[in-house]
Amino acid sequence: MQQEIPYKIYLEETELPKSWLNLRAFMQKKPAPLLDSETMQPITLEKLSTVFCDELAAQELNDTDKYIPIPQEVVDFYKMYRPAPLVRAYCLEKALGTPAKIYYKFEGNNTSGSHKLNSAIAQAYYAKEQGLKGVTTETGAGQWGTALSMACSYFGLDCKVFMVKCSYEQKPFRREVMRTYGANVTPSPSTTTAVGRRILEEFPGTNGSLGCAISEAVETASGLEGYRYALGSVLNQVLLHQSVIGLETKAALDKYGVKADMVIGCAGGGSNLGGLIAPFMAEQLEGKAKYQFIAVEPASCPTLTRGKYAYDYCDTGKVCPLSKMYTLGSGFIPAASHAGGLRYHGMTSTLSELYDQGLMEARSVKQTDVFAAAEQFARVEGILPAPESAHAIRVAIDEAMKCKESGEAKTIVFGLTGTGYFDMMSYEKFHDGKMTDYIPTDAEIEKGLSGLPKI
Amino acid sequence: MQQEIPYKIYLEETELPKSWLNLRAFMQKKPAPLLDSETMQPITLEKLSTVFCDELAAQELNDTDKYIPIPQEVVDFYKMYRPAPLVRAYCLEKALGTPAKIYYKFEGNNTSGSHKLNSAIAQAYYAKEQGLKGVTTETGAGQWGTALSMACSYFGLDCKVFMVKCSYEQKPFRREVMRTYGANVTPSPSTTTAVGRRILEEFPGTNGSLGCAISEAVETASGLEGYRYALGSVLNQVLLHQSVIGLETKAALDKYGVKADMVIGCAGGGSNLGGLIAPFMAEQLEGKAKYQFIAVEPASCPTLTRGKYAYDYCDTGKVCPLSKMYTLGSGFIPAASHAGGLRYHGMTSTLSELYDQGLMEARSVKQTDVFAAAEQFARVEGILPAPESAHAIRVAIDEAMKCKESGEAKTIVFGLTGTGYFDMMSYEKFHDGKMTDYIPTDAEIEKGLSGLPKI
Repeated sequence: MQQEIPYKIYLEETELPKSWLNLRAFMQKKPAPLLDSETMQPITLEKLSTVFCDELAAQELNDTDKYIPIPQEVVDFYKMYRPAPLVRAYCLEKALGTPAKIYYKFEGNNTSGSHKLNSAIAQAYYAKEQGLKGVTTETGAGQWGTALSMACSYFGLDCKVFMVKCSYEQKPFRREVMRTYGANVTPSPSTTTAVGRRILEEFPGTNGSLGCAISEAVETASGLEGYRYALGSVLNQVLLHQSVIGLETKAALDKYGVKADMVIGCAGGGSNLGGLIAPFMAEQLEGKAKYQFIAVEPASCPTLTRGKYAYDYCDTGKVCPLSKMYTLGSGFIPAASHAGGLRYHGMTSTLSELYDQGLMEARSVKQTDVFAAAEQFARVEGILPAPESAHAIRVAIDEAMKCKESGEAKTIVFGLTGTGYFDMMSYEKFHDGKMTDYIPTDAEIEKGLSGLPKI
Repeated sequence: MQQEIPYKIYLEETELPKSWLNLRAFMQKKPAPLLDSETMQPITLEKLSTVFCDELAAQELNDTDKYIPIPQEVVDFYKMYRPAPLVRAYCLEKALGTPAKIYYKFEGNNTSGSHKLNSAIAQAYYAKEQGLKGVTTETGAGQWGTALSMACSYFGLDCKVFMVKCSYEQKPFRREVMRTYGANVTPSPSTTTAVGRRILEEFPGTNGSLGCAISEAVETASGLEGYRYALGSVLNQVLLHQSVIGLETKAALDKYGVKADMVIGCAGGGSNLGGLIAPFMAEQLEGKAKYQFIAVEPASCPTLTRGKYAYDYCDTGKVCPLSKMYTLGSGFIPAASHAGGLRYHGMTSTLSELYDQGLMEARSVKQTDVFAAAEQFARVEGILPAPESAHAIRVAIDEAMKCKESGEAKTIVFGLTGTGYFDMMSYEKFHDGKMTDYIPTDAEIEKGLSGLPKI
């Protein structure tokens, strides 16, 4: 007899993952290697270690070890806000009248407001272990910057955050959260870096972009003794750390004998989705189970659904290594959107490769449809979702409604990556009927792709 | 052998309280009854039922039943965000270097951001059961308004919120959260009520006050068919519902064989503190255990520490019943403060009576000291506390430091009622060194008390 499923499944602390899962190690055909932007050859550990701390550089290049132990200090920090609950969305199911069984892994129950803390604390830990003074990073919507500020504060490291200028101005509260944790926050582009000055000269009055902020953070780290750069998404190391999401999710389902039929997540750089699907995909790659995986991206920035699988720069300033990924071109400037966390031109190489192999699907959705789903979800499930997370809700609801038509009782699992407390201006636009949708034209997509490096 | 205490103690859903605890029923000398403002006689159930729904009016007057079953629908809703974790503050203890063992009950893990939802859902449930169309209420900082909006949305009830004008303007995001849940939000004082118009005429340009917003909400409910008024603090019914906080806290401690030495909470109207201490105080009143209870209030609104124990009006418009309580006078206007939720002139009658009997202590603290504690806490424990909640943190840290001096390993439990995401403007003032303290003069206190009704 199957146990009754509670509203929320919390693992015991003793059941928390002891190791991260390295999805690439399970893949027969691996994602393509990062290329050194100077030599256009696969980047060496030595070179990568000038950007990231040594241990993180090693993790970045490691595609053979299936499991990597989580350091005890990181486990201890995880205990402050993990396990994250796996919630059975009984109220949403009832409101939809669907036979589907919907579960979501909620990663918003911490002050950073999202899953970003999972990797931030790991990156801060390794920086501390190496005896560094601090780290630099960029932040768009602000969740990653907040997470890294919290992590650095915990280990007594300095944290310099380049915050995309429009966010810096539109989200002063986010900035203050970072300051509460002792971070130094600079609006980007800034005059403190060469790349920032160049961009300001070329585009005076620019509101900044994530790609530009990344370039500034990398430049700053390389110019300071005892500093390295930290990134909140896209990288292999980040997917590795985020596997804690999927590992907990799978352990919670297994505990109650539940087998998922589909796993859904929003995808910007791909870190939360990559982490969520990791153990499920690994199981499938080993031939032990079969799942349907769905990446959800904004129609305004349709990396997987309309991009190209090619080597591209990760940042506007072209100072970072190149990655083979689904991309719209590092020169593609997505329309302003209320899901700032998903406005990135590329997709992490692991997910790109899985998508290319036909192991994962992708959907693009319009932001007005996303906010409608967000509000519907909030009213019955209580939690106010971040616009980014609501992309996954949209598709989960769509799939549940298909089940209603077909009568199938599928088990749907999605990732609810964070809360929308700092996104109320976007909700206000939606309430007031002032939100519009933007879908790039074919010509705009072509223009972005025409800037891809010739490799 | 004592079990190792995890960072967070989560009760199982099967261990959640099935009944609320009615603290007054344990008291030998009961709190004084509410008085009808027209007759100055103890208010009747019939009269009270014109203001509140029938079942809530009955709960308000019930000082004999020790336990009142929680309706199944409310239990189900509680499961969406409860149990709240009881956290062992290992990181704070380490940072302080104290032998004290510190625990906090964290009530911020829901979209209302605070404990207010515990009573909001109960009040909405009884309104729905009675077949009402909707409820009216007031909100200051906005947590109660958000909570009631969420609860009404869940049961399909209309919700009209009078939001203190200065909050309405300073906290537009809070307003939008309420709108997301479908509430109708009006800045108070407004021209929609007689009392609002009167106050606007007398004090043009006023920023409003909680007392005034209460009057407007009560007047609006009484003028509409199928509406009743709902209040988020001060009342006996609210303390009853909030006992779920204390019951979970005590069950979690008992599960690990831990006996608290002191229980600390911030106190505005008194609902969270009353709920937190309920089962501990009940045990003490039955002679089974002994605890130290500490109410923490802002120095700018020192109800318990400098007020008078007397009958007073609960609202500025004097339309509500009178309550015997520690009060600064309904005409006392506390200085602007960053803990809007604690800016109330009175204190719930139950806590007032317990304080008068010497069963509870009170401390008043300055807001700059409170924000220093908030930041210290955030940096090591991760959670960004609401300014209100940080009052309790201040005294918990003070007590832990006394333990450091004396070498005593006391067990300190405090209530962390909510998160500070909507209070970042206050944190900004603190970071920028622009926050000041205000302590009312004796003359100001005297002036407030001189307006007490002669009964």
